[in-house]
Amino acid sequence: MLSLGCPDALGIVARLSGFLAGAGAWIVEAAYHADPDTGWFFTRQAVTASSVRMSLEEFRERFAEIAATFGKEAEWSVHDTGEPKRIVLLVSKEGHCLHDLLGRAATGELPAEICAVIGNHTSLEPVARAHGLPFQHVPFPADPEQRSAAFEQVRTLVDAHDPHAVVLARFMQVLPPELCAHWKRKAINIHHSFLPSFVGARPYHQAHERGVKIIGATCHYVTAELDAGPIIEQDVVRIDHSYSIADMVRHGRDIEKIVLSRGLRWHLEDRVQVHGRKTVIFS
Amino acid sequence: MLSLGCPDALGIVARLSGFLAGAGAWIVEAAYHADPDTGWFFTRQAVTASSVRMSLEEFRERFAEIAATFGKEAEWSVHDTGEPKRIVLLVSKEGHCLHDLLGRAATGELPAEICAVIGNHTSLEPVARAHGLPFQHVPFPADPEQRSAAFEQVRTLVDAHDPHAVVLARFMQVLPPELCAHWKRKAINIHHSFLPSFVGARPYHQAHERGVKIIGATCHYVTAELDAGPIIEQDVVRIDHSYSIADMVRHGRDIEKIVLSRGLRWHLEDRVQVHGRKTVIFS
Amino acid sequence: MLSLGCPDALGIVARLSGFLAGAGAWIVEAAYHADPDTGWFFTRQAVTASSVRMSLEEFRERFAEIAATFGKEAEWSVHDTGEPKRIVLLVSKEGHCLHDLLGRAATGELPAEICAVIGNHTSLEPVARAHGLPFQHVPFPADPEQRSAAFEQVRTLVDAHDPHAVVLARFMQVLPPELCAHWKRKAINIHHSFLPSFVGARPYHQAHERGVKIIGATCHYVTAELDAGPIIEQDVVRIDHSYSIADMVRHGRDIEKIVLSRGLRWHLEDRVQVHGRKTVIFS
Amino acid sequence: MLSLGCPDALGIVARLSGFLAGAGAWIVEAAYHADPDTGWFFTRQAVTASSVRMSLEEFRERFAEIAATFGKEAEWSVHDTGEPKRIVLLVSKEGHCLHDLLGRAATGELPAEICAVIGNHTSLEPVARAHGLPFQHVPFPADPEQRSAAFEQVRTLVDAHDPHAVVLARFMQVLPPELCAHWKRKAINIHHSFLPSFVGARPYHQAHERGVKIIGATCHYVTAELDAGPIIEQDVVRIDHSYSIADMVRHGRDIEKIVLSRGLRWHLEDRVQVHGRKTVIFS
Repeated sequence: MLSLGCPDALGIVARLSGFLAGAGAWIVEAAYHADPDTGWFFTRQAVTASSVRMSLEEFRERFAEIAATFGKEAEWSVHDTGEPKRIVLLVSKEGHCLHDLLGRAATGELPAEICAVIGNHTSLEPVARAHGLPFQHVPFPADPEQRSAAFEQVRTLVDAHDPHAVVLARFMQVLPPELCAHWKRKAINIHHSFLPSFVGARPYHQAHERGVKIIGATCHYVTAELDAGPIIEQDVVRIDHSYSIADMVRHGRDIEKIVLSRGLRWHLEDRVQVHGRKTVIFS
Repeated sequence: MLSLGCPDALGIVARLSGFLAGAGAWIVEAAYHADPDTGWFFTRQAVTASSVRMSLEEFRERFAEIAATFGKEAEWSVHDTGEPKRIVLLVSKEGHCLHDLLGRAATGELPAEICAVIGNHTSLEPVARAHGLPFQHVPFPADPEQRSAAFEQVRTLVDAHDPHAVVLARFMQVLPPELCAHWKRKAINIHHSFLPSFVGARPYHQAHERGVKIIGATCHYVTAELDAGPIIEQDVVRIDHSYSIADMVRHGRDIEKIVLSRGLRWHLEDRVQVHGRKTVIFS
Repeated sequence: MLSLGCPDALGIVARLSGFLAGAGAWIVEAAYHADPDTGWFFTRQAVTASSVRMSLEEFRERFAEIAATFGKEAEWSVHDTGEPKRIVLLVSKEGHCLHDLLGRAATGELPAEICAVIGNHTSLEPVARAHGLPFQHVPFPADPEQRSAAFEQVRTLVDAHDPHAVVLARFMQVLPPELCAHWKRKAINIHHSFLPSFVGARPYHQAHERGVKIIGATCHYVTAELDAGPIIEQDVVRIDHSYSIADMVRHGRDIEKIVLSRGLRWHLEDRVQVHGRKTVIFS
Repeated sequence: MLSLGCPDALGIVARLSGFLAGAGAWIVEAAYHADPDTGWFFTRQAVTASSVRMSLEEFRERFAEIAATFGKEAEWSVHDTGEPKRIVLLVSKEGHCLHDLLGRAATGELPAEICAVIGNHTSLEPVARAHGLPFQHVPFPADPEQRSAAFEQVRTLVDAHDPHAVVLARFMQVLPPELCAHWKRKAINIHHSFLPSFVGARPYHQAHERGVKIIGATCHYVTAELDAGPIIEQDVVRIDHSYSIADMVRHGRDIEKIVLSRGLRWHLEDRVQVHGRKTVIFS
């Protein structure tokens, strides 16, 4: 799997595909996008590992030479998709996203191993354990100073697994900026509204109050600005005047589960590329 | 057609349906909604006119007696849906909503007669005339004082038709508060975003900038606060990173046309009831 | 909760609401539908139990007198929604619907108790047991004669719980006609296509072969004719040429889970009324 | 614009992009798809015409040499998207798709010139003429022998414009097989159901009868087998039990208009590639 983002220029695809053909690489999936606003070029190339006539290390080294010609801002990665991915889940009290991800893991649908579930409450511990997963409880006190100690503990517990994604599966604590930076493009949140509508707390209450006819959910990378990170996926469901807040919550959860699982999957399959505040999804 | 909104209480339906049965009224459609948050009761009853054993006038008078028992805040209306409805369209330069409504009128789908098209530009005059409709041009100067004279002229031209709806079919001038009040629950706007996201100007540009994965349109009653009136209808369409602003505009227009025509139809069929900032749609 | 279906006639609502008002019943939700094609009238009335000035038994007896005036074909039921409902799940090997329903039960979202899970394979036994549910294995041999013995066993196991719904949660055995009749309007199936497209086996393969751009799922009551029972709910998801069958299966499952859970919920809340091959959903 | 379909093999992209880079071609959009079931490779490459250092003729000749190495079944085309496209519309009595396409043409949204409207009834003649278009009436008698004369006349009238698309905008006559073959991948139909559900006549009646909860529309290439040609686009809209057939028709029309216009646009922009019964849409 080869991901590349760089300033757009003539002949990038030619050099790239020439290199791949030279390495004997059989391209299974290839996608490109050139953003006319930013002048940025994005590509994702999936090749059959067995077709490549060199080691992953050598492939990386030789590609680095090509990539150097694409400008010094170029960002790229090459890795073996055969290598299993790991994720850690952060939860609070609401269990629907946790249940959904555990169910997907159990049916073999999740392209990653769930290493651990960390909660600031203990209510979801039995579910995690029933699926054979370790559950670690990190209580979050109201006192702000003690909270940063709690976040330090979460960070240590998470980082022990060196995960490819840290999933905030309805984790109701706002990550401090330094943790957002530390887990940049790795911490994934599900927000229970169609952002940018209804940022912050109790979005279903806000939606009910405003009288909207459609509600939604948003999966995004976590950044220091609340609910403003690059959007990976969104979806919506139609409601009407007869929906109570409880009805909205229930229908909204179904959307949250789907949107989180789609966004997480794309992230784990290296289908998401970020440039500034926007994402390119090679789905 | 009987519409009623009043404080919820025991036996409203019984008194109402007892009255209708007593009048011989055959109920074709009946819908109810009780809002637990506001304690408000809403109903819409469509009865076959020929089944009623009294004149519309007498029916109204006798119902007024019943309605008086539902509280002094009760709002109600009784009218003959056989009576043709009239609408006036306000337009600027963008023609897609105008074309759409003219096409619906031509195919007999619109439950109203379009009396006139009023524009602050002349670019859409030929289309209106091709459909045999009068087009009135009211130029809007940049000077704020002259603008209120222009709005006065629009008001006079519109009110001459005593319309059931004043449709802002991508009319790009913000109505002054007194005109919003004058056309309360009669002036209908189509906003080219999924409100409350992207209030105000250039919503597709705002959506492009934010990197959302879905865009939408909102049909709402016009109130003094910009893009904040009671929402009648909304719908959305999925986009992705490859959409330029022009692509978003093109896909958005299809949603705008549908959302406006649905909302307008419900309004004309007296299916919309408003309480505070929210609508009940008996669709 | 009062459900009624009868031939349409003048004054049904008046008599019904007069009766309810006389009994002191506070109506929380009321919905009506008159079908012009069949001349059939449907209603669902939810009243606050504590407001009724008589026992459920007496209420039933007195309503029976009213109902008798609505024609001898009238079908009605009155029952206490406070009484907990019971369901039994039938499964085969595919676990996504089972996981989903177990997750909903665990988060308190399912308006019923899952009494048992019965499978013709044992692969889902651990999941059921992890949620503290009994799992009963009934193997289905290829020999048709032995199969009817297996169905007899399933019937006995299911009926022991006197359930309000028998959910075929991707149970891949076709129920024999006598069992369809026995569980009429109680056995609920999820079919993994947007019926009537792709009836029968391997619908995702059929959809892939046909090159459709949207796939779906259908929740319906089971009848003797395969995949032709009254439809309770359907939903769809957009796909494109790049979706392999495995991709379609994965996206389809998300729709199956939602459609089954919505349909089941409406059934359990007595929101579904059936007349002939069609359903009225008072959602 | 370069479109290519050929058997998949190692190095196609490399040879292709090497050729383009050698010609100085700046790639604006590039899309690829390899179908694992059929082993077929599809690509569409949009390049900036001014960047190419040779004439269109020379470009075509030199590409032909490359293409010859991709197998003798390879299909490809190279053409100048700056060249304006032409379409001819066939209509009967229902005008909504005609109105919609005329509106899009008037607002500059349609990437083609409408050369003529041909109808087997005269009811839509005034609309076409109001938009300044020639309308040609070709009556279709009931007698099958005379019908083939009528089709001959339609063919002559259409072919006079050498159009890039022949749009059956709710044209209610079934094209004879020889005309399907003659306009292969050029004749585009809008069918008013979500195919393969409800093939043939009166699909909304069929849908109403079956009690489906969602209806749709399908845009497809016309082939000799009725409503079975390669699907270009589909979309759906939710309905419920309260929808009469007239309501379904009205909502369905909105979907028909959108689906036809999307499919037609993709066709005109050479975004549709066909292999067997399926399409690849590089949207």
